Amino acid sequence: MFIGAQVSLYPMTSDFVDVITSGLEALSPYRSDLKIETDDMSTLMVGAPETLFGAIRDLFAASARRPEHVTMHVTLSRGCPGEADDPACRCEVLEKAQDESLEERKIKAAAAVRSAPETGVDIDLQFSLYVMGSGNHMEEIYGCIDFLRSSGCFHKTKNFCTRLRGDAGAVFETLRQAFLRFGPAEGHVTIDMTASANSPSLT
Amino acid sequence: MFIGAQVSLYPMTSDFVDVITSGLEALSPYRSDLKIETDDMSTLMVGAPETLFGAIRDLFAASARRPEHVTMHVTLSRGCPGEADDPACRCEVLEKAQDESLEERKIKAAAAVRSAPETGVDIDLQFSLYVMGSGNHMEEIYGCIDFLRSSGCFHKTKNFCTRLRGDAGAVFETLRQAFLRFGPAEGHVTIDMTASANSPSLT
Repeated sequence: MFIGAQVSLYPMTSDFVDVITSGLEALSPYRSDLKIETDDMSTLMVGAPETLFGAIRDLFAASARRPEHVTMHVTLSRGCPGEADDPACRCEVLEKAQDESLEERKIKAAAAVRSAPETGVDIDLQFSLYVMGSGNHMEEIYGCIDFLRSSGCFHKTKNFCTRLRGDAGAVFETLRQAFLRFGPAEGHVTIDMTASANSPSLT
Repeated sequence: MFIGAQVSLYPMTSDFVDVITSGLEALSPYRSDLKIETDDMSTLMVGAPETLFGAIRDLFAASARRPEHVTMHVTLSRGCPGEADDPACRCEVLEKAQDESLEERKIKAAAAVRSAPETGVDIDLQFSLYVMGSGNHMEEIYGCIDFLRSSGCFHKTKNFCTRLRGDAGAVFETLRQAFLRFGPAEGHVTIDMTASANSPSLT
C-alpha cells in the first residue's frame, strides 16, 4: 500500500510566504516519519495515515491561528495501482477494515471522532471521496455520508462534495475516518479536499 | 448527465477580494448558459463542458493577468449517479465517444488541443483524473497519460497527479479533453485540479 497527499497552503495575504514558512514549522514533529518533498505547486507527504493526517491538521491549524484568511487544498490517495508498495504506509485500521461490515465501520469511525484531540481552532472543510474500480462504489459513498451526518462536524451537502465545520481536531479526524473506513481496504481511494479559516464571507 | 464544477480562486494578496471580484467579471459572457451559485468556499458552475471550461479558463486567465500570485482549485464531475439528469449539460463529444476506441479518442483529443485559442497567459496546472465504478479504470488513466505526454502542455508526472504548463488556452483545452474523452462516456468521472500563476517559487 502507498498512502500520501499533495498539500498546498494558500494564505490570502501579501505576506503569504511568511505564513507558509511559519506554518511549515508545525511539520517538524512529523518530518522523521514522513517522506516530504516540495515544489512550487504542492508538498508531497507520504506515510502512515495517523502521522499524515496529524501533519496536515497541525499545518493548517497553525496557519489558521493567525488572523489572515487561509485555505488549503489536499489531494489524498491510498492504494493507487500505479504506485509501489511502501512499508512505512502500513495502517492497522485498514488491515482490520477488510473483515468489517459497513455498519461496524460506521460505528468505529464515529467513536474515533469523539476521541479526537481539540485544537481550539475552528475551520470549514469540504471534500469528495472517490472509490475507484469497484462496482458498488456508491454504496460505500452513501455509507460514508451516513457517518458524516452523525459525526458532529457535518455542515451541509453540496453538489460533488460534503461540507464539515468545527474544531480542526474533530474535522480532520472525520476526514481520516472517511478515507480509511470506506471503500475497499485494499482498493484505490482518493479524497479531494479544501479547508478554509478566517474567511470574511463566512456563511 | 449532470456536469459541473466547484471552483475556488485564491489570490495570494491582501487585496484578494478585489482580485476575485474583478476575476468574476470574466464570467459575464457565460452566465446565461451556466447555473452559477457561490458560497464562502466555492462557486458551483453547472452546464455543458464547452461553456464550463471556457468560463473556468477565462476566470483564471483574467486573474493571472494581474501581477499577484494566484491559484485556483476546481473539482470537476460528470455522470455522478447521485445527481439528477440536466439537459443543459448535453455534450456531443461525450455522445460520440461511446463508440470510439481509446486510440481514436487520443487522436481527437490531441487535435482539439492544437486548435485551442491562445490567451497570452502562461500558467501551471496539476490534476488527477478519477474514473469510478469500472473494472478497467487504470487502462483509461494510462491512455489519458499517453495523450497528456504528447499534448504539448505536459510538464512532469508527480505522485497522484500530472503537471501541465503552457498558455491557459491550450492547458485548459488539454484538461477538457482529458475529462471528456477518457473513462466511460456514460460513467462517473471526476477531476481534482489546481492551477497556479505568477508564483515566486516557480521551478
